[in-house]
Amino acid sequence: MQFTSEQRLDDGVLEREFTLGEVPGILWTPASASASAPAPLILVGHPGGLHKMYPRLVARARHSAAEGFAAATIELPGGGDRPRFAAAEEARADLLRALEAGEPVGDEIVDRLVLPLVEKAVPEWRATLDALLSLPEIGGPVGYAGGVIAIGLRLAVVEPRISAALLFAGSFVPRAMFEEARQVTIPLQVLLQWDDKGNDRQMALDLFDAFGSKEKTLHANMGGHTGVPQFEGDDGNRFFARHLK
Amino acid sequence: MQFTSEQRLDDGVLEREFTLGEVPGILWTPASASASAPAPLILVGHPGGLHKMYPRLVARARHSAAEGFAAATIELPGGGDRPRFAAAEEARADLLRALEAGEPVGDEIVDRLVLPLVEKAVPEWRATLDALLSLPEIGGPVGYAGGVIAIGLRLAVVEPRISAALLFAGSFVPRAMFEEARQVTIPLQVLLQWDDKGNDRQMALDLFDAFGSKEKTLHANMGGHTGVPQFEGDDGNRFFARHLK
Repeated sequence: MQFTSEQRLDDGVLEREFTLGEVPGILWTPASASASAPAPLILVGHPGGLHKMYPRLVARARHSAAEGFAAATIELPGGGDRPRFAAAEEARADLLRALEAGEPVGDEIVDRLVLPLVEKAVPEWRATLDALLSLPEIGGPVGYAGGVIAIGLRLAVVEPRISAALLFAGSFVPRAMFEEARQVTIPLQVLLQWDDKGNDRQMALDLFDAFGSKEKTLHANMGGHTGVPQFEGDDGNRFFARHLK
Repeated sequence: MQFTSEQRLDDGVLEREFTLGEVPGILWTPASASASAPAPLILVGHPGGLHKMYPRLVARARHSAAEGFAAATIELPGGGDRPRFAAAEEARADLLRALEAGEPVGDEIVDRLVLPLVEKAVPEWRATLDALLSLPEIGGPVGYAGGVIAIGLRLAVVEPRISAALLFAGSFVPRAMFEEARQVTIPLQVLLQWDDKGNDRQMALDLFDAFGSKEKTLHANMGGHTGVPQFEGDDGNRFFARHLK
């Protein structure tokens, strides 16, 4: 892991850009984090495009830092400046065509779009986690917060260092992964935007039902994809405080 | 309104039993409430049987009082020591028969069970509200929190002094009242116990969808009817703090 830039934000949060192999990412640590008081870590998932997503990501990271959490994110395979991901690009084009034509999105398109992304992104997240946890100012336990719910789901199954996840329902999930959801046992909070046009509400409810976790909470709010109410940010902090502190 | 008993609980909350005509009730006021600092009020709904419900009701009232809210509840028509309510009793017997036989509960049974209860209970709640708001230590605004969601729904439509409602999905709602739900415009938080056997999950989701409120949030948690997690109590306080303070 190579740090490529470093700046102190006005609230004392340290923002560092890094690369891990070909994967760029950003780490935010609260001013309070040190080797003697390492901060618990939240991995922040997003739909790709670090630069475009930066304002929302930094806002979430600062909000988490105010509660003593470090936060980190990496670019998705094929996202931002990373090389295009041919299979996924093609599937995305098919998806957009189906949505524009008002046709139902077939399982086959979802599989082609999401499965390769999950297969490629999850090992990158795990390698990032290895690197982050080797920093003295970062301690376990670890949470995952964000979209691309299929990636969060797979991480929750395969990565034992992740203790809790706050998932945003809002992307397609391959049918095969509903079976996988039953293997998730960590505490979950799932955010659902009730009127999210790009999201299948019933699929989100079915997925929530499928998760094997004994403690899982669904928070559904009005409005579209980016309309998550501000109070959910505070509630997310409280969810992680219950499980990571 | 006649106060019939008064005691100071160990956290300073003043508990007073009262009767309003034939309707018994309980009022809890935080130690801080006074004529110069009147407390906002939360009406606490429950499925009937004040004595049986007392431990849960007083726990909720004390939790609300800790945030500065007064809380009040009344006995349901036909509940506790109040005279039986023949029509509802008969419908309740039919309901239990259907549930025990594993049959679907017909709309006709739900109508006979719930509509007369709503028709009778809502004017009693409104009269109680008149009496409570005439006390110098109680001020507006007013919230409704609790079960018998059909009563909360009707109150939210007809009673302009109620500014926000925290509703527990967990009782049957007549089909005709789904239309009425569209007229509800106050902020809502709806609690749904995902595995509540006595509750129809899909009906609860449909009702949440039907409410006309621009700000409405659904919190679904695991477990049965009485298994609402403790953190939802804190979250309910925060919901009312956002809207009643």
